[in-house]
Amino acid sequence: MYRFASFFSPEEIEQIHEASLEILEDVGLLVRNEKARSVFARRGCRVDNQTTLVKIPRQVVEDCRSSFVPNYKFIAQDPQYDVVLPDDRPVIVTGSSAPNIIDPKTGEERRATSTDIANIAHLINELPGFDVFSISTLADDAPEGQFALSRFYPALKNCKKPVRSNTPTIKDLEMVLELGEIIAGSKEAYMERPFINHHYCPVVSPLTMDVESTEAIIYLTEKGLPVYGTIVPNAGMSAPMSLMGTLVLGNAEFLALSTLIQSIRPGAPMIYAVLSTVADMRTGDYAPGAIETGILQMAHTEMARFYNVPSGGYIGLTNSHCNDAQSGYETGMNVTAALLAGADLFNMGGLLSSLMTFDYAKAVIDNEIALMLKRITRGMEFSKENMCLDLIKEVGPGGNYMDKMHTLKNMKTTAVLPKVANRQGRGHWEEEGRPDSHARALAEAKKILMQDNPARFPAELDAKIRSHFPGIVPGDCKW
Amino acid sequence: MYRFASFFSPEEIEQIHEASLEILEDVGLLVRNEKARSVFARRGCRVDNQTTLVKIPRQVVEDCRSSFVPNYKFIAQDPQYDVVLPDDRPVIVTGSSAPNIIDPKTGEERRATSTDIANIAHLINELPGFDVFSISTLADDAPEGQFALSRFYPALKNCKKPVRSNTPTIKDLEMVLELGEIIAGSKEAYMERPFINHHYCPVVSPLTMDVESTEAIIYLTEKGLPVYGTIVPNAGMSAPMSLMGTLVLGNAEFLALSTLIQSIRPGAPMIYAVLSTVADMRTGDYAPGAIETGILQMAHTEMARFYNVPSGGYIGLTNSHCNDAQSGYETGMNVTAALLAGADLFNMGGLLSSLMTFDYAKAVIDNEIALMLKRITRGMEFSKENMCLDLIKEVGPGGNYMDKMHTLKNMKTTAVLPKVANRQGRGHWEEEGRPDSHARALAEAKKILMQDNPARFPAELDAKIRSHFPGIVPGDCKW
Repeated sequence: MYRFASFFSPEEIEQIHEASLEILEDVGLLVRNEKARSVFARRGCRVDNQTTLVKIPRQVVEDCRSSFVPNYKFIAQDPQYDVVLPDDRPVIVTGSSAPNIIDPKTGEERRATSTDIANIAHLINELPGFDVFSISTLADDAPEGQFALSRFYPALKNCKKPVRSNTPTIKDLEMVLELGEIIAGSKEAYMERPFINHHYCPVVSPLTMDVESTEAIIYLTEKGLPVYGTIVPNAGMSAPMSLMGTLVLGNAEFLALSTLIQSIRPGAPMIYAVLSTVADMRTGDYAPGAIETGILQMAHTEMARFYNVPSGGYIGLTNSHCNDAQSGYETGMNVTAALLAGADLFNMGGLLSSLMTFDYAKAVIDNEIALMLKRITRGMEFSKENMCLDLIKEVGPGGNYMDKMHTLKNMKTTAVLPKVANRQGRGHWEEEGRPDSHARALAEAKKILMQDNPARFPAELDAKIRSHFPGIVPGDCKW
Repeated sequence: MYRFASFFSPEEIEQIHEASLEILEDVGLLVRNEKARSVFARRGCRVDNQTTLVKIPRQVVEDCRSSFVPNYKFIAQDPQYDVVLPDDRPVIVTGSSAPNIIDPKTGEERRATSTDIANIAHLINELPGFDVFSISTLADDAPEGQFALSRFYPALKNCKKPVRSNTPTIKDLEMVLELGEIIAGSKEAYMERPFINHHYCPVVSPLTMDVESTEAIIYLTEKGLPVYGTIVPNAGMSAPMSLMGTLVLGNAEFLALSTLIQSIRPGAPMIYAVLSTVADMRTGDYAPGAIETGILQMAHTEMARFYNVPSGGYIGLTNSHCNDAQSGYETGMNVTAALLAGADLFNMGGLLSSLMTFDYAKAVIDNEIALMLKRITRGMEFSKENMCLDLIKEVGPGGNYMDKMHTLKNMKTTAVLPKVANRQGRGHWEEEGRPDSHARALAEAKKILMQDNPARFPAELDAKIRSHFPGIVPGDCKW
């Protein structure tokens, strides 16, 4: 792109930034985590340990801004899958941590298990649109004390792309890092290429930092391991019923979290990630699929560009419970809007029902949407040669390009050639039994999952892991 | 928007313009219409009446450019529905001239009739997302000699928004204008507010102007009546298999048509309208739903901005034969991309199967997509007041916005409140029988069409029309 779409003039951007600084300085935020309060205190913030209220002077925020860095890297087990923001934009990530899954055999919703995670990991490894596997579901069969391990193990065992997720406690986090070290071969090897990518939502809007997620962010930042947070204000509930109000509040929350991270380790890579939404106040329903989510993402992305930090978030979600037109346009419109505003990261794949439910067909459909986003990013490919003036002269008025060498040479690369999107005529489609995109996508998922998984761990490594963590889930694909 | 997305630098735009001029000057185009050749000849073009080849010197194009105007108005029977490009952007128009319709009772495809057009006109009149009714289907029941009349009469009888379509011959066109004059009350009254909006595709790519559509454009332009053309190159078939090649070719075709129009009547309003596509060369299938259609629309829109002419086209079409995820993301992604690049006009509503088939549910779904586009256009609504700093201070960290006066006051206007998009929880949805967006949209269409049509002609006027055109179709809604 020569230029991204934007809502704001440079002066308006400054005013939004100023408003967020005013919130942090005058209103402050509740910081429930004691270590975080100490960090803020040492940095020169006004901290009340009784009420846990922390007020951040504007100069502290501005000082921290000076150590923001413009890149963020997702490291993979296999280095060929490493991705860097913003260079490799758009970076497409699965949606994550859904408690439920649509069972691919019955079509019914049920609790997800560690075996589902293994299957999904295999699928995501094979779908070229996805760059990062954020572990899509929880694991209902996790043994006691192995909640996070039961998610990361099947994911890492079956997917060589960067794996991303969160952990509920520091104990879980340490167990996951141990797993990483075993896979890497040693602690040192893991620290050199930390291929487990951590993510948390430490800020509860409005203006509250929690205990556990904040602790994990501090822990990982201190160690120099990759971690970032997502800011999730919900207009009408935890934020003002105004897009501008939600933006300045969410922006203040991003700056507060950034101040914490940069105070611990100046230059620590970050992503300005959000899931800013507007509640449907007719019912109070959460509406992450609404177009306002895309508009807010665009606005936050503009602020991220002002701060020179990569941006993105949970964008491209749907409220729909099935792969209908709504699921298509909610995902499609919001990611396209975010992309053209310059967002780098898209947590968009595979979830229905407002983050509650994973669906295989949705993941395959979203893979095609991802490929379309990448095609938009490639853009028009301006060049003298691509203008084809000689060819246009050769074919002339009234001619045909179908049988030209140039056409044959470029027919597989000029356009996305989708597998799910149907382009055949109606007659042919009716003969095939009128398969809709859900049916076509589910068939494609099944085809992939019935093949061997080339990404799977070697047996020796697996034996080592299994003896290190007694009682660990099988972690294998089963289809 | 403060700024639209763009692919090209100003220097690249100049080079694209230059390439198009080179095509017109060196390659030229076949002009099958004799009157058009005379116009080009009088203007100083090199015309070969034997071969029909016309070569347009660059200076002729540049001279014509100086009379381009930046606005285009769609006049409606009811002035409250008049819309002006680009002021009222995005202007949302139905897709047009499909031969078939999905019968709303059987769910099967069949030929469309004049009664279908009456029903669709009523529906479009009631759906707030649509600004212009481009007559969605053909009328298979048209009496001989009344092909166009059988489409325009039911449309104008049942829809007070601007009505748009084409006519196959000048005789058809004159009959339609007669109808307009009867409705207006006199020829003079009609000429003052010509509420029938004409549209043609006079250029057959590559570089050929046809006989009949070109004749209609000349006829209407001479009379000062509203008309515009759409340019429709198809990469791999009638244009190079390269987005840049298709752009410079399509841009040359737009300039050729504009030169004709401006030569006849300098200052005649125009739209830079396109349906530039890339063929799916695996099968040769037409793929207007592909993302390349959106990318090309974005690029043409940038060229339109350079020429200071409103832009748009048939953007938001789908290849799908049903309202599945594909139909949602193909329409949704392409219109969002075009909107953020600055397109003004969207011929997007109600068609499935690559322009072949109208579907009521698709029209209702597209109405919601249209409302989402309009919401993006409203944007963030930057203002000091909308930043809500006082409210954020009042609620404070850890507070709740749900019961605030500000929330109550703004809950109906901040966000789109969709009728079709489902936001309820899965349990409730399952109890209701799992309706997908197709089912919900069809129910909404039926609800509207079972009500009386407030837009319908007065009986006296109708009697006058019916006696003027013996044998004319009934033109009434029948549900």
